[in-house]
Amino acid sequence: MADNEKPQGKPPAAEKKGEKEGSKAGKQAVKIPKGTRDWVGADIQVRDKIFKAAGEVFARHGAVQLDTPVFELKHILAGKYGEDSKLIYDLADQGGEMCALRYDLTVPFARWLGMTNTQSIKRYQIAKVYRRDQPAVARGRMREFYQCDFDIAGEYDTMIPDAEILRIIVDVFEAVGLGKDVTIKINHRKILDGLFAVAGVPADKVRTISSAVDKLDKLPWEEVKKEMMEKGLESGVADEIGEFTKHSGSLKKIIDLLKASEKMMANESVKKGVEEMDLLLSYLEAFEIPDRVTFDLALARGLDYYTGVIFEALIELPPNSSSESRIGSIAAGGRYDNLVGMYGRRQIPCVGVSFGVDRIFTILKQRHEDEKQRAKGVDVYVMAFGGKNGLLKERMAVASELWKAGISAEFSAKVKPKLPQQFKAAETGGVPLSIILGEDELAAGKVRVKTLGLADDHPEKEGRLVDRADMVEEVKRQLSEGQSEAAAIPALTKSLDDATIVEKPQTAA
Amino acid sequence: MADNEKPQGKPPAAEKKGEKEGSKAGKQAVKIPKGTRDWVGADIQVRDKIFKAAGEVFARHGAVQLDTPVFELKHILAGKYGEDSKLIYDLADQGGEMCALRYDLTVPFARWLGMTNTQSIKRYQIAKVYRRDQPAVARGRMREFYQCDFDIAGEYDTMIPDAEILRIIVDVFEAVGLGKDVTIKINHRKILDGLFAVAGVPADKVRTISSAVDKLDKLPWEEVKKEMMEKGLESGVADEIGEFTKHSGSLKKIIDLLKASEKMMANESVKKGVEEMDLLLSYLEAFEIPDRVTFDLALARGLDYYTGVIFEALIELPPNSSSESRIGSIAAGGRYDNLVGMYGRRQIPCVGVSFGVDRIFTILKQRHEDEKQRAKGVDVYVMAFGGKNGLLKERMAVASELWKAGISAEFSAKVKPKLPQQFKAAETGGVPLSIILGEDELAAGKVRVKTLGLADDHPEKEGRLVDRADMVEEVKRQLSEGQSEAAAIPALTKSLDDATIVEKPQTAA
Repeated sequence: MADNEKPQGKPPAAEKKGEKEGSKAGKQAVKIPKGTRDWVGADIQVRDKIFKAAGEVFARHGAVQLDTPVFELKHILAGKYGEDSKLIYDLADQGGEMCALRYDLTVPFARWLGMTNTQSIKRYQIAKVYRRDQPAVARGRMREFYQCDFDIAGEYDTMIPDAEILRIIVDVFEAVGLGKDVTIKINHRKILDGLFAVAGVPADKVRTISSAVDKLDKLPWEEVKKEMMEKGLESGVADEIGEFTKHSGSLKKIIDLLKASEKMMANESVKKGVEEMDLLLSYLEAFEIPDRVTFDLALARGLDYYTGVIFEALIELPPNSSSESRIGSIAAGGRYDNLVGMYGRRQIPCVGVSFGVDRIFTILKQRHEDEKQRAKGVDVYVMAFGGKNGLLKERMAVASELWKAGISAEFSAKVKPKLPQQFKAAETGGVPLSIILGEDELAAGKVRVKTLGLADDHPEKEGRLVDRADMVEEVKRQLSEGQSEAAAIPALTKSLDDATIVEKPQTAA
Repeated sequence: MADNEKPQGKPPAAEKKGEKEGSKAGKQAVKIPKGTRDWVGADIQVRDKIFKAAGEVFARHGAVQLDTPVFELKHILAGKYGEDSKLIYDLADQGGEMCALRYDLTVPFARWLGMTNTQSIKRYQIAKVYRRDQPAVARGRMREFYQCDFDIAGEYDTMIPDAEILRIIVDVFEAVGLGKDVTIKINHRKILDGLFAVAGVPADKVRTISSAVDKLDKLPWEEVKKEMMEKGLESGVADEIGEFTKHSGSLKKIIDLLKASEKMMANESVKKGVEEMDLLLSYLEAFEIPDRVTFDLALARGLDYYTGVIFEALIELPPNSSSESRIGSIAAGGRYDNLVGMYGRRQIPCVGVSFGVDRIFTILKQRHEDEKQRAKGVDVYVMAFGGKNGLLKERMAVASELWKAGISAEFSAKVKPKLPQQFKAAETGGVPLSIILGEDELAAGKVRVKTLGLADDHPEKEGRLVDRADMVEEVKRQLSEGQSEAAAIPALTKSLDDATIVEKPQTAA
């Protein structure tokens, strides 16, 4: 489900008119549209790590990848997002079909299910979605941002796909290295609805009261109660909701708590929900993840279309995190059994999860920076030391040989580059290894392979002069040694000033 | 450079008005916008193989990936595509900035260079671009399609980056398995321009005559000559152009040919171009690819902004290909030294190539189908044979263990699935291996691991009953044996009817 990045602002209708005409006087500014960004270099490496990890987990569960067009026919999106429809980007009417940019990945999936004769599928899609929201770049709210959705569609026995989705959430966060930091809160719409009914909430107020309950993780009880009463609840009714929604704990604990309440269990909806949660617990045990899930009766989730389990993955931030950078939900979803019928003749029950790629990215990037990894992946810089015509063709031939061996390599695209410039280029790029060509050495069939950034007293500081035929092997040897040496650095230099390590050209990723 | 998929049709202004209101009476059709497609399953696997292969080659050359927003400010795109500007998709005016979908990846790259303080970079981008062209899906002309661009920007010595681009084209096609089938045609704008001048083409007619020359690979000389004369050339002038542009061959051959013509070499532009091609040849020799490149004096390329070498990679189709499926250019590009200055204060010389992903996809898909690979990547289907509650939790636990070992696995999401249904599901999904659970075997701590689709007289037809503790190892053993067996099939069954192989559940990718 694609509701993880629910927009929270107003549409940008109030933007300054001036922007439309471009900046100031004269030449129009060369800039990027508001609320969008260019991804480049190290950021893409971190982002791709997330995509790769998630994609591998999904494939392991037999999922098929879907890639839909960036725009859909306008009527496909119409009437699906309630008030948020005003955030949809329309394409201009230039003749022909009326289209709009996709707002999430759920509606395109439902459209695809409706168009094809697919009865059941596990599908995933990782792609950008578009919302004409007021951007807040610092807080990570963008107009173009990534979603990563995994859904199981089809008629299956109760709670089996739901349990697998939860297992997948655990697997994905373990794959990106956040397994220990994430907990999953879970609740069931049938229990929540029944609870509201038992407490005395009128049927037409259930959704609006539900959205008040959803704020309990951010606001104190008093404020939430105030909102409920403003929405027309009596104080006693609100208190009864508050009494139950304050409970959270292991699935077993909350199931037992509910079972112990005759009043609750007398409600058909609660009873059904508890039975399903009981079944879910037994499946989570088979999947070995019951301890990764917390049953939280206050979890409500915003979207209307959920019909069964709902869940939200939360990251525990380190204690020194500022409230500015506080990050809550990084994945969310639930069961929605009545949505696909809007597009096809058949109703297909679905359960799914949407991962907040940008939020996961922000966390991983922080850690990535802590590790001071290098942005580029080039392993070898091929240099000339003097020589006729800067030994350009010789550098080309050496680079060519490295590429053929699958080793990434660069050289200066100058005929006669100076040696310090070449070292500088290698250092700037964080390249760990150099091959230095000299006229006399080449005549003798030799090249120098040298790990960069070694200490002055390191025995291999000057590199090794090797036969040209042994070059590739020597490069591989020094690269793998450099890696183990680099890996050892943090332990060895724990007491050194951080700056000592930063200034030094890094020797491995 | 992103001109590989040059649009050739008219804008779709003439589309039936009716489409705007949706189909027929009543409910609006659930469909996808014209000229777009959903990518799914096996197609995505083939496509990703191209992306991965290209990305690895680019990284090996030290390239950085760039991912720009799907839309740009409208004025960034304005005035960059000449007549084709009418094919740009605008976003509707909903207040705020005026934006349009990207038309290619070159302008966003130039915009990014202009915005950032980047002096030099190797960058690549693989992404969809948008053109409001009349779609011709059968011929592969879409409104949303992929481009894969690699460019080298920066002030470098003559022909060094140009040679590297050519080497990259060779590397990418080798990486996707088309190395043997692709040849690269190359020419130089300075030579072409000089040749026109020598022949007597007026300066203001050079571009339009150039575009006539560009048709020489599709039309007979007589028709091209006719077009030139209609464009105002005298017969003798056209003939002189025809005399030179008919030559193609190795770089050395054509360079020698030009050098032998005093009349040509007297032209400064030709002389400069020939010197550069001479230099390029020496670099291609250092890169070991001079035999992959053909110097074709008739290659002109459509776009105005090329200033130096231009090239086009062509695939040689098998002799039995129908003309319908004839595929010509699958990558193209050249040097463009004056484009980036339109966006920044600095002019940055660039040379680049755009790979035609959709065309490469079509070729690989054809081969992929020939190999009859399975669409999904699931290795194991976990089944129950009888047992209490369909042994669901036991199946879950087994799947869970396989996932943990990195093995892809599925099971029926039914509490009590029938055995034939489970076999059918495995067969449909092309799953090579099954684990079959039985109550008695489980009680004895055993499971059955069985390769699917073995012949009736195969010694392992019934699979192997192994200790639960040895299950993962046995799965890995049978998977790797199944793969080598499947690899041997084409050789062993060469004389059998194809259908024999198709009907059989496939045992490996």
